[in-house]
Amino acid sequence: MFMKNCWYVAAWSHELIDDKLLGRTLLNQKVLLYRGVDGQVCAIEDRCCHRGALLSKGRLEGNCVRCMYHGLLFDASGACVEIPGQETVPPDLKVKTYKVVDTGRLVWIWMGEQALADESKIPPFPYLHDPEWHGYPDYLHYQSNYQLIADNLADINHIAYVHTNTLGGSERYVLEQKASPLERLDDGFRLTKWHMNSDLPPFVRKIEKKMGKVDRWNTVEMKVPAFFILESGFSPAGTGIREGNKAGSLEFHNFQAMTPETEDTTHFFWVYMHNQKTDVELISHSLHDSILEGFHEDKDIIEAQQQVLKDDPEFRLRAIASDAPLSHLRWLVAQKIKEENERVAVQV
Amino acid sequence: MFMKNCWYVAAWSHELIDDKLLGRTLLNQKVLLYRGVDGQVCAIEDRCCHRGALLSKGRLEGNCVRCMYHGLLFDASGACVEIPGQETVPPDLKVKTYKVVDTGRLVWIWMGEQALADESKIPPFPYLHDPEWHGYPDYLHYQSNYQLIADNLADINHIAYVHTNTLGGSERYVLEQKASPLERLDDGFRLTKWHMNSDLPPFVRKIEKKMGKVDRWNTVEMKVPAFFILESGFSPAGTGIREGNKAGSLEFHNFQAMTPETEDTTHFFWVYMHNQKTDVELISHSLHDSILEGFHEDKDIIEAQQQVLKDDPEFRLRAIASDAPLSHLRWLVAQKIKEENERVAVQV
Amino acid sequence: MFMKNCWYVAAWSHELIDDKLLGRTLLNQKVLLYRGVDGQVCAIEDRCCHRGALLSKGRLEGNCVRCMYHGLLFDASGACVEIPGQETVPPDLKVKTYKVVDTGRLVWIWMGEQALADESKIPPFPYLHDPEWHGYPDYLHYQSNYQLIADNLADINHIAYVHTNTLGGSERYVLEQKASPLERLDDGFRLTKWHMNSDLPPFVRKIEKKMGKVDRWNTVEMKVPAFFILESGFSPAGTGIREGNKAGSLEFHNFQAMTPETEDTTHFFWVYMHNQKTDVELISHSLHDSILEGFHEDKDIIEAQQQVLKDDPEFRLRAIASDAPLSHLRWLVAQKIKEENERVAVQV
Repeated sequence: MFMKNCWYVAAWSHELIDDKLLGRTLLNQKVLLYRGVDGQVCAIEDRCCHRGALLSKGRLEGNCVRCMYHGLLFDASGACVEIPGQETVPPDLKVKTYKVVDTGRLVWIWMGEQALADESKIPPFPYLHDPEWHGYPDYLHYQSNYQLIADNLADINHIAYVHTNTLGGSERYVLEQKASPLERLDDGFRLTKWHMNSDLPPFVRKIEKKMGKVDRWNTVEMKVPAFFILESGFSPAGTGIREGNKAGSLEFHNFQAMTPETEDTTHFFWVYMHNQKTDVELISHSLHDSILEGFHEDKDIIEAQQQVLKDDPEFRLRAIASDAPLSHLRWLVAQKIKEENERVAVQV
Repeated sequence: MFMKNCWYVAAWSHELIDDKLLGRTLLNQKVLLYRGVDGQVCAIEDRCCHRGALLSKGRLEGNCVRCMYHGLLFDASGACVEIPGQETVPPDLKVKTYKVVDTGRLVWIWMGEQALADESKIPPFPYLHDPEWHGYPDYLHYQSNYQLIADNLADINHIAYVHTNTLGGSERYVLEQKASPLERLDDGFRLTKWHMNSDLPPFVRKIEKKMGKVDRWNTVEMKVPAFFILESGFSPAGTGIREGNKAGSLEFHNFQAMTPETEDTTHFFWVYMHNQKTDVELISHSLHDSILEGFHEDKDIIEAQQQVLKDDPEFRLRAIASDAPLSHLRWLVAQKIKEENERVAVQV
Repeated sequence: MFMKNCWYVAAWSHELIDDKLLGRTLLNQKVLLYRGVDGQVCAIEDRCCHRGALLSKGRLEGNCVRCMYHGLLFDASGACVEIPGQETVPPDLKVKTYKVVDTGRLVWIWMGEQALADESKIPPFPYLHDPEWHGYPDYLHYQSNYQLIADNLADINHIAYVHTNTLGGSERYVLEQKASPLERLDDGFRLTKWHMNSDLPPFVRKIEKKMGKVDRWNTVEMKVPAFFILESGFSPAGTGIREGNKAGSLEFHNFQAMTPETEDTTHFFWVYMHNQKTDVELISHSLHDSILEGFHEDKDIIEAQQQVLKDDPEFRLRAIASDAPLSHLRWLVAQKIKEENERVAVQV
């Protein structure tokens, strides 16, 4: 069971260059993403309605896609517009379509009731469009349910143990950090954690040699079903970061979007951005590689966890205090799925 | 659910040379095929009735096979004739047997009610026995239900899109071809398609350099559950092929047999034959390789299609006009399975 | 369904050197085995009660194990004794524990009702502790149910056909051997087989060049659910072995323990021991390698058999005379499982 009436990331825009017919399973549905000759990104069912052949193995023709099994041609509205060797085409011969929005760097898709798709509900991450901010977008495929990845992100304390030598820096992080009250929002939560008078973690030390002790902050914003937006910063220690003085600080913006492929697998889109003025590409590269190293530490744990939970459906997890954000997010998702089901029941 | 009271191809005869104990799953049943010292091909259950060990890992002894777990010896009637270390053998200790017919190049098997096995019902393909006709028999293993392969063959128009650059030659094939009326038979169908004034397709061009424009014909005969017999020819354009004048034509005969291994996998036996007088082996090789290249184009589509259908059992296919032969063949198979079930119900 | 109120081998003691956190699935349960700083071997659930992370990917700290996801620390009693960043720990936050006994070379575990664990019930194999006896303990992982391996061992006649060229020596073994009456015990069986005036089998011939014809004996003792204890010997032919005269004989002691991992996979622990005075290591090596070669012959058959039985749950095996020990052992295991289930029903 997934939330359906919401936007998901379907692809990075750059995945659709060169007339690529990108077949991708999203929420158990086979979707074909492509950019037509008119420049519009389209999403149609990746399954010919005739014999079920993959349209992603077909051929782009203008704004249409031809199935290369028996040659049926489909336009961007999903309608079959040509059956080679047959004079007429039944008007109801069509494949499903999905609303998509191409924001420039991300392609968003609405998998649920198409009439409800509202572009203004796309989670904003303005740094992607801001020429001052730099980073290399990337993708990972997870052998786990998307919520286990969101759970991981919802408790940032995990950086102390999972990422000690990469993103975290010290197990003391979890003992010494101070947290703001959890802001429970209608569509997610917001939380800031500070680690005062600490050392730069390894991944920052690689690109910043001069700073001594720092005050570190992480402001996490998560949105249903599974978006993670993080502002991270490092200020010279004692210069008043908790009072809002960010002068002389290093700042990063991190975006992570989890899109269910199936119940047990997930598309993971991410970018980590900085606003340095010099060595821009070097720094982008270094940050990309450091973060990816950290993500593999997560992936190792989460995919094993998936297997453990799968092996024993009776197993009940036990919450600890720092699970409050996780619990709120899971509760919200469950609520929204319930509402969607009730809505469908009323319609029927 | 498979048709059972019919002949299936179990193996090419040449697969049973050198005392080979060939274990092969046919219609979900484990079968051991072997040629005894008397030259007869036998088919017995590939599963010792004692502890279920594979007899195909056993040892051929004359016309018998010894299980190499505890040494039980079975003869070609399936009876256990020796239990080492035990004086008597219970008379009902036996494994299943199947009627087989070795036609010289093909081994046919009857998987259903053994009393009904009637050699005269074996689909004829005389070119296999004709010294004027040449070709290299071969085998492919498919990760798909056997009917998806038969479907593919039932609509020969697919050569326009799937095999444009190999067996088809042009997408115009589907637009320009003329078809005879579909002959719906009790055990299959027959259909001829002509493509007048066309170019030789790439696979023929490799072995025939002089012909110009040709009139091409394909006479397809399919038989339940899944046999494909094709006569293909190329005549100099305008010399009256539709009136039966085959003078100066190149002719080929193609046999393809699909035998279900399981619901989701298939044994595919095929041969493509020519009657050229010179360069016989070169031409056989060239045709074999060209056809195989084409079959891999099919396999790529069909195995993906199998996965698509498997992933969503709710998905309903939509027929187009050229599906008439396919629909007739599927209807026949369903009828015959129904009749077999009714027959079993009456017997019980 | 497994017997639970009994001892199983969980590991060889030497597997727990160097602070190893050994995660192993036993009877479908994920178990973490480790030796604490106090030298005691512990077995706790290999699954953090917080989020299900594997504790075997954690860190040994004294006698405790820390989960490296969020840092929870568990002691050998299974209790969580620290949650980093949280002041109090709920007293009921714990993981399961299992009684283990480390006999010096083997680690035994009791997977059932912990109150019933009784060290005196561990199947004795004194040769493991006897400085006169030598052998290299080893482990194999089987893709089969544990009972198919036990079945194999229960009928030693299989050495004639499966191990003709390795452990058996001749197909005549099964024809010429004489057996003692089967001793049906409450927890297993005992049986001796003699092969008089026979040749040394290949595996003994490798380490003993001078002996001529021998009288060979195998005394098998099996215990529920799946322990195999074998005394094997070779005496100069005609010197009275059946009357108890073992003078001048070569003797071996073999221990094999099968511990279910899942219904379809098994941990197989084994050692083959000799008491030679010279070339001790060479002989241990030779025997180890010979026996392993034989075990792979078994494994090949048994894993194929597992697949055959799995593919057709309707298939019914047929017993032969030499299956009497096998049948008794399977009957005992079924009885004991039934008793365990009745005991649980009464408690509820």
